[in-house]
Amino acid sequence: MKYQVIIVGGGPAGYTAAETAGAAGLSVLLIEKNNIGGVCLNEGCIPTKTLLYSAKIHDNAKHASKYAISVGNVAFDLPKIIARKNKVVRKLVLGIKAKLTTCNVEVIHGEAMIVNAQTICVGDNLYECDNLILCTGSETFIPPIPGIDKVDYWTHRNALDVKELPASLTIVGGGVIGMEFASYFNSLGTEVTIIEMLDDILQGMDKELAALLRADYAKRGIKFMLKTKVTSIAQTDEGITVNYDQAEGNGTITSERLLMSVGRRAVTSGFGLENLKLETNERNHVVVNDKMQTSIPKVYVCGDLTGFSLLAHTAVREAEVAVHHILGKEDKMSYRAIPGVVYTNPEFAGVGMTEEVLQRSDTTYRVINIPMAYSGRFVAENEGVNGYCKLFISHDDRILGAHVLGNPASEIISLAGMAIELQLTTSAFKRMIIPHPTVSEIFREAL
Amino acid sequence: MKYQVIIVGGGPAGYTAAETAGAAGLSVLLIEKNNIGGVCLNEGCIPTKTLLYSAKIHDNAKHASKYAISVGNVAFDLPKIIARKNKVVRKLVLGIKAKLTTCNVEVIHGEAMIVNAQTICVGDNLYECDNLILCTGSETFIPPIPGIDKVDYWTHRNALDVKELPASLTIVGGGVIGMEFASYFNSLGTEVTIIEMLDDILQGMDKELAALLRADYAKRGIKFMLKTKVTSIAQTDEGITVNYDQAEGNGTITSERLLMSVGRRAVTSGFGLENLKLETNERNHVVVNDKMQTSIPKVYVCGDLTGFSLLAHTAVREAEVAVHHILGKEDKMSYRAIPGVVYTNPEFAGVGMTEEVLQRSDTTYRVINIPMAYSGRFVAENEGVNGYCKLFISHDDRILGAHVLGNPASEIISLAGMAIELQLTTSAFKRMIIPHPTVSEIFREAL
Repeated sequence: MKYQVIIVGGGPAGYTAAETAGAAGLSVLLIEKNNIGGVCLNEGCIPTKTLLYSAKIHDNAKHASKYAISVGNVAFDLPKIIARKNKVVRKLVLGIKAKLTTCNVEVIHGEAMIVNAQTICVGDNLYECDNLILCTGSETFIPPIPGIDKVDYWTHRNALDVKELPASLTIVGGGVIGMEFASYFNSLGTEVTIIEMLDDILQGMDKELAALLRADYAKRGIKFMLKTKVTSIAQTDEGITVNYDQAEGNGTITSERLLMSVGRRAVTSGFGLENLKLETNERNHVVVNDKMQTSIPKVYVCGDLTGFSLLAHTAVREAEVAVHHILGKEDKMSYRAIPGVVYTNPEFAGVGMTEEVLQRSDTTYRVINIPMAYSGRFVAENEGVNGYCKLFISHDDRILGAHVLGNPASEIISLAGMAIELQLTTSAFKRMIIPHPTVSEIFREAL
Repeated sequence: MKYQVIIVGGGPAGYTAAETAGAAGLSVLLIEKNNIGGVCLNEGCIPTKTLLYSAKIHDNAKHASKYAISVGNVAFDLPKIIARKNKVVRKLVLGIKAKLTTCNVEVIHGEAMIVNAQTICVGDNLYECDNLILCTGSETFIPPIPGIDKVDYWTHRNALDVKELPASLTIVGGGVIGMEFASYFNSLGTEVTIIEMLDDILQGMDKELAALLRADYAKRGIKFMLKTKVTSIAQTDEGITVNYDQAEGNGTITSERLLMSVGRRAVTSGFGLENLKLETNERNHVVVNDKMQTSIPKVYVCGDLTGFSLLAHTAVREAEVAVHHILGKEDKMSYRAIPGVVYTNPEFAGVGMTEEVLQRSDTTYRVINIPMAYSGRFVAENEGVNGYCKLFISHDDRILGAHVLGNPASEIISLAGMAIELQLTTSAFKRMIIPHPTVSEIFREAL
């Protein structure tokens, strides 16, 4: 059978490519070996946000007295929290399946094997295509720490389904995944320790705001061990023991559970990618142009497989660009304004350049950093909570980067992202009318 | 004493004009007869949102079981809710006062009387200016209903400071103010009835979504009486009795309290406006151009006094435009994308054109209307809650209007507002990368 487009992988990149191509009338085959929706929908973005919202409701109830509301004993039902999370995931997966059907996308559940750029094998069947879009995503990276293979550690996948709260949890890796789970388990009452090899948590985000968020969570009881290298791990009678190395010397920490969240890496094997002999870069990632084309023009790579951004919203946009190129529709990928969000409480979001990137690139810039309390609504809804909005402005008065610590950073960051993507001057951005009172107004206040 | 700018009225228009002019180095005198911050800050936007947030925390705690969180008895302390509201207002007023000081603005507390376009009298003192900016705002309009003068009714001002919850409350006027107070008192347990003369609540907002919001509140116990005219009001032994007239006939409703929220109108008298003999339109509002200049070029009018928008964020922007014109800085007022927000729970927001305006103006358009459940984050955080996102698209694929029912509509509406103000095509808007998962993504889903 021959298709105009075959897509390998049904995560955000894959299902977006399939929907977009199908809606435009192309014949589309989507091949997924696990679950439609990929990591993001089934065991990533969506389930974590669902769990974190239960934790937020729990926190808000516990601290309701700040707003003159009194509540009796606050408790949670972990199996029910997990059940609701599963329900949300099921509902959204069904939504995507329905949309794929509406868009006339054929879906095969099975393992794809690339024979060549026009031929894909699934089980005993061969499928032909004009265009091939590879969206195989990424997987958890587990570093080869001595002893790790003998320990029953968690990845994010296990942590999502924990029905019995551990008394203590060590998290190796203070990136977004580590911090979100730290926030979740800390809210519910677990004693959490984060071990991070680098100088601070949340690399790639604004350093100053990341440090403030860390200080805030430290007050809430999370123990942070920075510049700390895990040297070995062992199961002991007391739990899982992590041996580490710091500037101050060696040490040991034991907790009931261990979550490994060091990072993720592109899935590049197991589906015959090597048969295409695509050009790769020095980091062994497939090289793509701004239409998401590889060195074989009719083979596209979108999403985490590019090894570039590892974010669902980047993947979605890349998939649109690839399909638009197939359709002959003017479009190209821009990485100028890709927001990054950490769904802690408070949320932390950034878009555009960070100070480190600016300093490395020798760009002239000025910094604006104001407390979120400049927003009346933030004050009304965040009793006793601090937050900051930080903007980097170019010599010709354009916004280069925007970073927000404070709720709802995730929802307001796109406004700054849009100004960055469109390269608006600060005066042009300030001409936008933002409703009063909102937290979004913080950008007008800053400028 | 002579100033480059004298500003009459210290609400959002007035303090913004003062700060902007002062920051640019102009000599500025701001005259305010009551409180700096105006109605918005002292008895409008900010205090209502503070009260509504306590109500939201109360609601969330009561319905926490939807997210598998159990709480004991939920109660509120009304005097404490009010005290916190007052604290928030004080903090923000102090912030504005500090900013005015930083910007070298001279502030006089007193009643301004305009002698002529260059001369203002306050008490026994005369002040001269090159430019005059009038920002006297608006006031509650109380219709001359028979008996109203003999009844101890509330305006929004009283409702903000209620320390003893009434058992029942009749609200005359189902506009934004009426609906926000209805939401607040309904959350706390008051039996609320809204009487609205027109065919539905929230005139000027999307009719379909307004009806959905009304139906939602009706389920929560608010009684809506539409197309109902109040004919007289009287104090009785049982409380305040409102007599009304409907298509179905006459009737009577009695409740403990009565809130009048029929509307607001510009403050045009008491400060010598008549001495300027400014050109007015058929509705008796001062005519201004897109630089906010009146028929006397160095006299500007900003904010509610224009009788046009009656929104703080419009006022703020108008004030910037006026001062920019004084400074010779290129700018002009645009009313294309002024968001309107109702801070009910769920929030309801709209920007750009409504269907009624489109139909009246004979514009060709198409409608997109999708459930908010297309946003994964909305599903994760809104158990059992429906919401909708409605877009009106022009024949040349530009967004003409955007309307959202669902939290946090207030914070995401600006994204659509920005697309409308910049007249982006839908394809250009869709190229913006919005973080996943967020409710903001609903705009991408819709397009």
